[in-house]
Amino acid sequence: MKTLQVDVAVIGAGTAGLSAYRAAKAAGAGAVMIEGGDYGTTCARVGCMPSKLLIVAADAAHAVGKAPGFGVHPDGVVRIDGREVMDRVRRERDRFVGFVLRDVQSIPDADRIRGHARFVDNHTLAVDDRTRVRARSVVIATGSSATYPDSFRALGERLIINDDVFNWHDLPKAVAVMGPGIIGLELGQALHRLGVRVAVLGRGGRVGPIGDPQIRTYAIATFSEEFTLEPDAHIASMERDGDRVALRRTGSDGSQETAHFDYVLAATGRAPNVADMGLDRTTLALDAKGVPSFDPATTRTASADGASPIFIAGDAGNFIPLLHEAADEGRIAGANAARLALGQPVNPGLRRAPIGVVFTDPQIGIVGGGFHSLKSGTFATGQVSFEDQGRSRILLKNKGLLNVYGDLATGRFLGAEMLALAAEHLAHLLAWALQNKMTVAQMLEMPFYHPVIEEGLRTALRHLDVKLHAAQTNASRVS
Amino acid sequence: MKTLQVDVAVIGAGTAGLSAYRAAKAAGAGAVMIEGGDYGTTCARVGCMPSKLLIVAADAAHAVGKAPGFGVHPDGVVRIDGREVMDRVRRERDRFVGFVLRDVQSIPDADRIRGHARFVDNHTLAVDDRTRVRARSVVIATGSSATYPDSFRALGERLIINDDVFNWHDLPKAVAVMGPGIIGLELGQALHRLGVRVAVLGRGGRVGPIGDPQIRTYAIATFSEEFTLEPDAHIASMERDGDRVALRRTGSDGSQETAHFDYVLAATGRAPNVADMGLDRTTLALDAKGVPSFDPATTRTASADGASPIFIAGDAGNFIPLLHEAADEGRIAGANAARLALGQPVNPGLRRAPIGVVFTDPQIGIVGGGFHSLKSGTFATGQVSFEDQGRSRILLKNKGLLNVYGDLATGRFLGAEMLALAAEHLAHLLAWALQNKMTVAQMLEMPFYHPVIEEGLRTALRHLDVKLHAAQTNASRVS
Repeated sequence: MKTLQVDVAVIGAGTAGLSAYRAAKAAGAGAVMIEGGDYGTTCARVGCMPSKLLIVAADAAHAVGKAPGFGVHPDGVVRIDGREVMDRVRRERDRFVGFVLRDVQSIPDADRIRGHARFVDNHTLAVDDRTRVRARSVVIATGSSATYPDSFRALGERLIINDDVFNWHDLPKAVAVMGPGIIGLELGQALHRLGVRVAVLGRGGRVGPIGDPQIRTYAIATFSEEFTLEPDAHIASMERDGDRVALRRTGSDGSQETAHFDYVLAATGRAPNVADMGLDRTTLALDAKGVPSFDPATTRTASADGASPIFIAGDAGNFIPLLHEAADEGRIAGANAARLALGQPVNPGLRRAPIGVVFTDPQIGIVGGGFHSLKSGTFATGQVSFEDQGRSRILLKNKGLLNVYGDLATGRFLGAEMLALAAEHLAHLLAWALQNKMTVAQMLEMPFYHPVIEEGLRTALRHLDVKLHAAQTNASRVS
Repeated sequence: MKTLQVDVAVIGAGTAGLSAYRAAKAAGAGAVMIEGGDYGTTCARVGCMPSKLLIVAADAAHAVGKAPGFGVHPDGVVRIDGREVMDRVRRERDRFVGFVLRDVQSIPDADRIRGHARFVDNHTLAVDDRTRVRARSVVIATGSSATYPDSFRALGERLIINDDVFNWHDLPKAVAVMGPGIIGLELGQALHRLGVRVAVLGRGGRVGPIGDPQIRTYAIATFSEEFTLEPDAHIASMERDGDRVALRRTGSDGSQETAHFDYVLAATGRAPNVADMGLDRTTLALDAKGVPSFDPATTRTASADGASPIFIAGDAGNFIPLLHEAADEGRIAGANAARLALGQPVNPGLRRAPIGVVFTDPQIGIVGGGFHSLKSGTFATGQVSFEDQGRSRILLKNKGLLNVYGDLATGRFLGAEMLALAAEHLAHLLAWALQNKMTVAQMLEMPFYHPVIEEGLRTALRHLDVKLHAAQTNASRVS
């Protein structure tokens, strides 16, 4: 077994790992990147990119169906060619993966180690028992994988995860999507629009990342108009029936219904890839799921002696599993790992205002820590419904509800939750305002063009501003 | 003739007038609103709203045509039903106008005067020789009308303006659009997508509000791929030929081509409605076109004695003919007219960062004063092409070019010009950043989600940031 001595060892060549490797090198450290699986990021291979590719095909089909409302009539049958749909998804997915591979190839061979890395101690990694890496500091960037209950396994190859969908060569007839989280909602609605019979089933009533009960209720009602969505379904049984899956659900009235699906898509969550890497041989403090605790500002993990040389970034850390956050965490982790290796102090890195988007139609947008992060009695809510909003109505997409939150004491904007057309754009505008620490009054001094979706946001901000103003008037009367 | 004595007289019941009337009342003044034409705003009747309605129908037709690229095949003929298209445009237009009329109806009868107002002197208006209004201050909010060269008149009823388009009951076969400004581009592209043969012809090479030569060249090339656009056309003759118009153009090689059109749509500009209102009997300073000069901060007009009691707002002032600016100007004018009437000082009002959007596809967006407002040698430009931008490519809409400008001395963001998908949203993000006086470096600290169009903007900002950074490094070396 050969032994390498490096400043920084990065485990994982995904978004966070690549970002960490580059940051470590940029900071003047020597670094290696160790990858045990295929190269390519979660985002490009099985996440953001292929899902958006499936969604745009679904939206194309939906748009064709909506065209008669404007006087545009595709007379005759609208044929959705599943082979063509999936061919474009895979082809463009491969193209995006190709960019990542090119990125990886641009890294010197000497800095790339292939194999599965296991900790021997805080500073030592054994890679497939062939190479031993001694590192002054280590970045864990091993990503995450889909998880599901063990009971699902009985479905055999009829059980699939998101990764499998993007390798399809044709569309199936019927899919049960277990879990109305981000992946479940995006894929469920897209498959429905592509003519697949879909049921999106959850437990406990949660829908995507929505925390605000008003927005959640509205979202469930809106999606339910289009496809079967039961966020709190009661599944009596789920079993193989020949080439299909028979799924028996119990209705709220106790009635039972059985439906058959070609596949059950497990979208029940993802877990960090941190098992089987010898973390028990480090001094790290691990949580109940075996994930190292860490400081999001520095990405440094916590250890008993308070001087851990190990950093963690991206989905492996289970903090905010989004590409742009993974890239930031990788950057922070790589730079800090380098600094530590070079005998410099570890620094907090740039963290941005939280922003989350689900690419359903309407989209879901979350800005800030979400409704559940707000302390009751300290904030007010402004609201707008998009059902009668001018531009939305012009577009025949007048569906949506947006809540904005403001701080009663300072008038500061705190965040938003929404189901809205163009939520991806509204969320950027609001996240920038949040990071700029703007008050709601200041936001209302900004330009709003006409006729745009942003005017709906303005309505909500005005509604909130009135409440904040009233609260401050009351406060000054009392004092 | 009866005589009314009021604090504030507002001439015009459009967007600016309604806004001015309300602001004057809110400021505690008595006010009347005088309208000589039909109630209803330019925006709702013949502007932003009906044009967006025509555009969404056009985009629906375009989307049906693009669907096969995603594997979605409308087999058979796509029939564009011109009667249905125009029926929805008129029906929804009438609905939007209805909202305005409801707004107007909510104003007390005593405050509404019908008739054409003419100045007798700075403080006196004669309304249709029936009513004399003595006002402590006056707001001119008479809007604008389409203008075209006198030579066009020979075309008789084959010559139309935008107002006429929105009263169509069916789509014509061929339309020559004179003037590739905002209206000409929006209507020209929309009619083309609805199956109308279109030629958009201009003189001098201008395209919409684009000032940046790179963006203009790119926009011309992009639109020209889709429909006939000649921003610097040479029209040899244009004359009636039965029920149609024969238009002879001279090509750059001297060749001549004659094409027939059902209509010539004059989109050659708009002029303030200030003629025939007796401005010569006031003490106002008028420009060459007879439009009063005024201070955009207060909307107060200039007069020889420096103490004009007359304010001007909206398209009548010919400053920024956009709804949100008209509403702002109306608000400022109404409030200041009231203050003056009540013996209080006139104040500068809130003006917002300039933002302009043209709802073509791709859209045109302008933030700040535009390229021509920048002083050569004081700024740097960052650029992104959307031709290889991830999300744009997913959407099969990877067309676009965006330039962002930054101040070499301070690193401050100065504005942008773009042809881009979702420019309406990018323009809001950038206009807010501009009004917040952000530096380009600060903008890069903001969140950018993935995969979104905003990532293209980030590429341009990074490009700009490198240039600004280099300039500042050089400057510090020199000093």
